[in-house]
Amino acid sequence: MQEFAVVLVDIFIIFAAAKLAGEVFERLRQPAVIGELLVGMAIGPHALGLIGQPNSALIDLFGDAHAAEEALDLTYEVLAELGVIVLLFFVGLETRISDLLRVGRRAATVGVLGIVFPFAFGFLLFELLGNPTVESLFVATAMVATSVGITARVLRDLGVIDSMESRIILGAAVVDDILAMLLLAVVSGLGEGQGISALEVGVIAAQAVGFVIFVALVGTRLSRHYSLHLARLRMPDAPFVVAMTVMLGLAAVAGYLGLAAIIGAFMAGLIFAESREHFDLEHQTMPVYQFLVPFFFVVTGSHVDLGTLNDAGTVALAAVVTVLAVAGKVIGAGLAAVGLPARSIAILGAGMVPRGEVGLIVASVGRSLGVIPADVFSVVVIMSIATTLVVPPVLTALYRGSRARPPYPTDLPLSTGATD
Amino acid sequence: MQEFAVVLVDIFIIFAAAKLAGEVFERLRQPAVIGELLVGMAIGPHALGLIGQPNSALIDLFGDAHAAEEALDLTYEVLAELGVIVLLFFVGLETRISDLLRVGRRAATVGVLGIVFPFAFGFLLFELLGNPTVESLFVATAMVATSVGITARVLRDLGVIDSMESRIILGAAVVDDILAMLLLAVVSGLGEGQGISALEVGVIAAQAVGFVIFVALVGTRLSRHYSLHLARLRMPDAPFVVAMTVMLGLAAVAGYLGLAAIIGAFMAGLIFAESREHFDLEHQTMPVYQFLVPFFFVVTGSHVDLGTLNDAGTVALAAVVTVLAVAGKVIGAGLAAVGLPARSIAILGAGMVPRGEVGLIVASVGRSLGVIPADVFSVVVIMSIATTLVVPPVLTALYRGSRARPPYPTDLPLSTGATD
Repeated sequence: MQEFAVVLVDIFIIFAAAKLAGEVFERLRQPAVIGELLVGMAIGPHALGLIGQPNSALIDLFGDAHAAEEALDLTYEVLAELGVIVLLFFVGLETRISDLLRVGRRAATVGVLGIVFPFAFGFLLFELLGNPTVESLFVATAMVATSVGITARVLRDLGVIDSMESRIILGAAVVDDILAMLLLAVVSGLGEGQGISALEVGVIAAQAVGFVIFVALVGTRLSRHYSLHLARLRMPDAPFVVAMTVMLGLAAVAGYLGLAAIIGAFMAGLIFAESREHFDLEHQTMPVYQFLVPFFFVVTGSHVDLGTLNDAGTVALAAVVTVLAVAGKVIGAGLAAVGLPARSIAILGAGMVPRGEVGLIVASVGRSLGVIPADVFSVVVIMSIATTLVVPPVLTALYRGSRARPPYPTDLPLSTGATD
Repeated sequence: MQEFAVVLVDIFIIFAAAKLAGEVFERLRQPAVIGELLVGMAIGPHALGLIGQPNSALIDLFGDAHAAEEALDLTYEVLAELGVIVLLFFVGLETRISDLLRVGRRAATVGVLGIVFPFAFGFLLFELLGNPTVESLFVATAMVATSVGITARVLRDLGVIDSMESRIILGAAVVDDILAMLLLAVVSGLGEGQGISALEVGVIAAQAVGFVIFVALVGTRLSRHYSLHLARLRMPDAPFVVAMTVMLGLAAVAGYLGLAAIIGAFMAGLIFAESREHFDLEHQTMPVYQFLVPFFFVVTGSHVDLGTLNDAGTVALAAVVTVLAVAGKVIGAGLAAVGLPARSIAILGAGMVPRGEVGLIVASVGRSLGVIPADVFSVVVIMSIATTLVVPPVLTALYRGSRARPPYPTDLPLSTGATD
């Protein structure tokens, strides 16, 4: 009980701060997600330190303060991960697979070119600076993968998740994640000094692509045929419970295959998109969304450590890497989106920019293998955070510029009565 | 990402197993909670070991397997704690404070006598066996506190949460928890060898009683006056979000004061009980309930270690302690409930029996202070688990005996359409 006291206080602080900041930003006519990220920065261990400090009962349990901190961290990361899983499930629920397939070719091109350019830019920069090739490969890989959670949340906050640009971004994110996962497998093999055979890469690729195609084709078909039978189950709220089970299951399988768990959650949402109206799944998922999603954005914000900005050389390198990371995505998306209006190209480019946790994971693997030194690790961390923080206001401005009125209020209301 | 893979698989297993077991038990016309407890036993570390096994990435993060296991454990315990918090919030939401006050005197008597008898029985047994007095005091204290989560869930599953007996049990649980917390403070002080002054006990008591009375009186008044203003907030689903914030906040304060967090969550539910219909809070809380509550029961079940039953002396002592723990509550409730029908007395007695995690906490404190030896700790663990597992079928039988038909289906349906 005493171990939990500190955790419950932290959870209350995270939740209350997120909702308060969201309210303030809604009143400023900005997406709530910006407020949640900023408040996470403020209360995190690198600023006010209001959360993540173990109490003595917890330190006793783990034997030392560091392990207790890591354990608290794991707990909050898991809540955050559940939050972003629910977010992407919800986005999937709002996406028709037929709409996604209609933009499929375009989305695939955005995904592929959005990998090629940042990778090439990062690799060339570090080769020109004379770094070891393995290090260049790791940094380049850390620059490729889009973390689509941030973009998806902003697009939902803005009420444009069903736009053509949103669908292209979501489809591109799936392609992007598969390619980034393959790249990480290849460079990890090189970093371990043992290499990786073309056969191994082929197997990994086949698993990932097979998973996505199998879920998209067979899952939707199963859902269409059997979802009406869910009413025969005795458990209360059976369709919602089954949808949550599939969401957690596909997230776990995606994670197990080395993909981002949110890709599995998004696919789960797609599967249930056709039966969502019949079973009212959106209204039932929304409270879980309201409860869990803020943890992802506050915890993401809490990782920001402005203290890493104390060395001029690191800051300069980080600035160059960040600019290249942004330019790579914008150029890649721009080439892939030739023929679309300029604003759509800008939205696609901006939407693919956030690297979030994916860049951090690649950098962590490189650090644990000893091929990425501490200052380069800081550079990747700064790039990941900067690309994440810059996108919400840019996307908001891009959409606002094209509309007579801001589209607030935006979230799906749970009840049609008093909340409106 | 790789650290999360194992956690997500575990979370999927817990959720899917809980819902599957719940479905099976609903078809057997038994409360789903029994299935959840049993499936937790089956998949837990003491049986199949399907959950809680860290993978290599997690072990690397924590340096050794034991710390990684503890961290996983903390994460699942926190999900379980959030589950039981949501459960008691929901029960509070279904309880009118005026109904609770109407049975207030009876509830207080049940709470007090339900502490006195088990404490006396436990103390006398261990004194007669010749154990040190401090040890006797700890065991006696571990025998007093009711863990009302199990009972509340069974009563909800049976659809009788609004019965007179349920209200008495809920009110008695609040009184019981305050007294148990005071007892723990006193015996902990004695166990630390420094004692505790009457003034200190008075301060702790005043804080706890003050918290409950303040929340009950001022909270409900604030809620009545200001809840209609919640619609002025810009955030989506403001009443639900504010209710969740108050739930987490009061749970944290209760934990901070040494009370069970669920007492705070229950009070939060009471506060919003009057405005629940206006804001549709039950329908909005239900999906969060469906998502989180199973974690509490599966994790509780996973603590059961039948391996402790290998020593005949320990088993015999555990059996005696368990019988005294049950008899103490039944006699206490019986005396307090004189004048009520025999069935009501039996329900009150049975409803107060589960010790759940509260007995374990007292025993853990005693073990960490070195005043409870390993075999006596096992005895308390067995008593806690046995009293928890025995109650759901007994309560079900007591309610079934008095009704022409079983009251299934019982949970509040989320949608009025396809799930019925």
